[in-house]
Amino acid sequence: MSETITAVSAEIIEPIGTITLREAQRRNPLSRKTMQKITRLLREMSDDPRVRVIVIAAEGPAFSAGHDLTEVVGATLEDEQVVFAACSELMTTVHEVRQPVIAQVQGMALAAGCQLVATCDLAVAADDARFGTPGVKIGLFCSTPMVPLTRAVGRKRAMKMLLTGDMIDAATAADWGLINDVVPADELAQTVAELAGAIAASSSATLAIGKRAFYDQVDVSEREAYRMMTTTMAANAVMHDAQEGITAFLEKRSPVWEDR
Amino acid sequence: MSETITAVSAEIIEPIGTITLREAQRRNPLSRKTMQKITRLLREMSDDPRVRVIVIAAEGPAFSAGHDLTEVVGATLEDEQVVFAACSELMTTVHEVRQPVIAQVQGMALAAGCQLVATCDLAVAADDARFGTPGVKIGLFCSTPMVPLTRAVGRKRAMKMLLTGDMIDAATAADWGLINDVVPADELAQTVAELAGAIAASSSATLAIGKRAFYDQVDVSEREAYRMMTTTMAANAVMHDAQEGITAFLEKRSPVWEDR
Amino acid sequence: MSETITAVSAEIIEPIGTITLREAQRRNPLSRKTMQKITRLLREMSDDPRVRVIVIAAEGPAFSAGHDLTEVVGATLEDEQVVFAACSELMTTVHEVRQPVIAQVQGMALAAGCQLVATCDLAVAADDARFGTPGVKIGLFCSTPMVPLTRAVGRKRAMKMLLTGDMIDAATAADWGLINDVVPADELAQTVAELAGAIAASSSATLAIGKRAFYDQVDVSEREAYRMMTTTMAANAVMHDAQEGITAFLEKRSPVWEDR
Repeated sequence: MSETITAVSAEIIEPIGTITLREAQRRNPLSRKTMQKITRLLREMSDDPRVRVIVIAAEGPAFSAGHDLTEVVGATLEDEQVVFAACSELMTTVHEVRQPVIAQVQGMALAAGCQLVATCDLAVAADDARFGTPGVKIGLFCSTPMVPLTRAVGRKRAMKMLLTGDMIDAATAADWGLINDVVPADELAQTVAELAGAIAASSSATLAIGKRAFYDQVDVSEREAYRMMTTTMAANAVMHDAQEGITAFLEKRSPVWEDR
Repeated sequence: MSETITAVSAEIIEPIGTITLREAQRRNPLSRKTMQKITRLLREMSDDPRVRVIVIAAEGPAFSAGHDLTEVVGATLEDEQVVFAACSELMTTVHEVRQPVIAQVQGMALAAGCQLVATCDLAVAADDARFGTPGVKIGLFCSTPMVPLTRAVGRKRAMKMLLTGDMIDAATAADWGLINDVVPADELAQTVAELAGAIAASSSATLAIGKRAFYDQVDVSEREAYRMMTTTMAANAVMHDAQEGITAFLEKRSPVWEDR
Repeated sequence: MSETITAVSAEIIEPIGTITLREAQRRNPLSRKTMQKITRLLREMSDDPRVRVIVIAAEGPAFSAGHDLTEVVGATLEDEQVVFAACSELMTTVHEVRQPVIAQVQGMALAAGCQLVATCDLAVAADDARFGTPGVKIGLFCSTPMVPLTRAVGRKRAMKMLLTGDMIDAATAADWGLINDVVPADELAQTVAELAGAIAASSSATLAIGKRAFYDQVDVSEREAYRMMTTTMAANAVMHDAQEGITAFLEKRSPVWEDR
């Protein structure tokens, strides 16, 4: 079995699709091939009607230590661009798939590993989790991890992580908004499963509209955001699942989704 | 007395103008007519020199449960657009009026009710207040509430509220920056009155310049913001009230505002 | 000795450059000349290869009470524009210099003083520090301080500081992300020196790339940020210090920077 197959695995237990990093002994490096495989798996799940929520998890003591540095050393500029373009494409894909994506994090999430957590729509971490962007210490500033990190924790806090390379613990990450929740390590999988299950109870058509709308509006001016969202919300309101959901709510019964 | 008259009332006790939602038994739904009336009242107060600060309050156990769902069910796309456009116009108007607008919140503030709190310049809540964007549960994602919510609490936290529909309590809302302060329920009105009174002691001309400047600069690049604000601040500095305020400060006396 | 010389001093003790406000008795006003001198000193240090981190400190009980109001009173619009343009140029220069800039703050940091803290890449404060934008109380809204303040603490919190003019304490400033850390007053200088020293251990070429990249990406859409940062990171990866840093890391030895 080749490395590209074993480094990442995918499993669908309806309605949850789980992508698992499986190079525990190497602390789950995000090599170019691994990133490309995650991207491909995300796209497949995006098109799979059985999948209503996606979880990105990792085996072993660390979530991910970041890029595979053996790929970055001695490479040409062209090769470096291929690696970092693969990374940016993975992160962009996390935002583009129809389903909410939850990071399930234990141990270290460093550099591109921290970036992946910052990028996921939601993140839950074990209390032993640590987050950092230590590239500065090896001469390679975490410029791409900086993109979602800055947008998650704000300027001063991102700057300190980036300039010092120091790690923050899980409680600090939750306090700063990098992750949503911290739980004891032995409750991590169950907590994520419950969160995913709760979200999966909603109409997947509605979740897809909402997720896309979120990233459409988050980066534009408030005026432009309102212009877009007013249209989005009106279009959502006349869809089957909204009419069914509202009617069920008014009739105090459970809705039956068509998911379209 | 028609519903449009009783659903919302306005009162001016100088220097504070208060707009009160008054459909307590229905948990103050933001129907199209109610939103249009609040918008109209805000504009009237904006032009009223007696009003130096505006408070938006609500009668009964809930601040507002959001849109009037009976309007949204069975409506045409055109009608939905009218409803959500009225909502977006209300929110935009909160930012456009000359005076600071403070939300005074008890009980539930949901969907468009949560949006209104997020939109107000300031918000104070009773310790029993709860905030949520539960539209996802009825198939209608809270895409317009998402606009100010994301800008108030950040990405991960907004996403969790939007994707789960779960409510957060008042302490969490304050911790996340959705509201400014939490007080015991029986001190809410007094706390808001004191905050409004303290702000109203400043020059209303200065407050109007500052509020407009705030929303001018908040959505643009830092460089563009500085370009605009440098001009704004210089123009402010040569106005009567700035010259009077600075002179009074240097002379250790109270200023006398002309409010222009 | 002229005022322009004594109001601000610069000292380089390799690898740290320190700029110190020295009008303690006047609470370190940011007069036009003082701001222009800080700007000039920052630019000189930016070009000085001995300086790897810059600290902005202040003598006396206050960091800075803000603008020199005697300059603002009775001035022409043209003169006001010169003052506020000098202020905005100082703040922009803090972001433009190659080195990370750390604010070392004790006592009051008000108006433009608060703005300078908000603008610095990092900030550490003594537990007696207080932060505020009180211009509204003297008729001159803190419209330029608002620019970095809003981007540091978020909308609702910035609005409350701006509309009330009330000060927040150091613990609150840290909780809101205006500063990074709070320490006992007698540990302030040492804490900043240790932080500066830790950062200065990294490649100055890498720090310069990272700092510029930070401000390039912070104000643009996430998609545009990724486009820029993918290129930046690939170019960084092929530089000497990145190749040396990664190799040293893989070989478990200390890197030797060329700083280019």
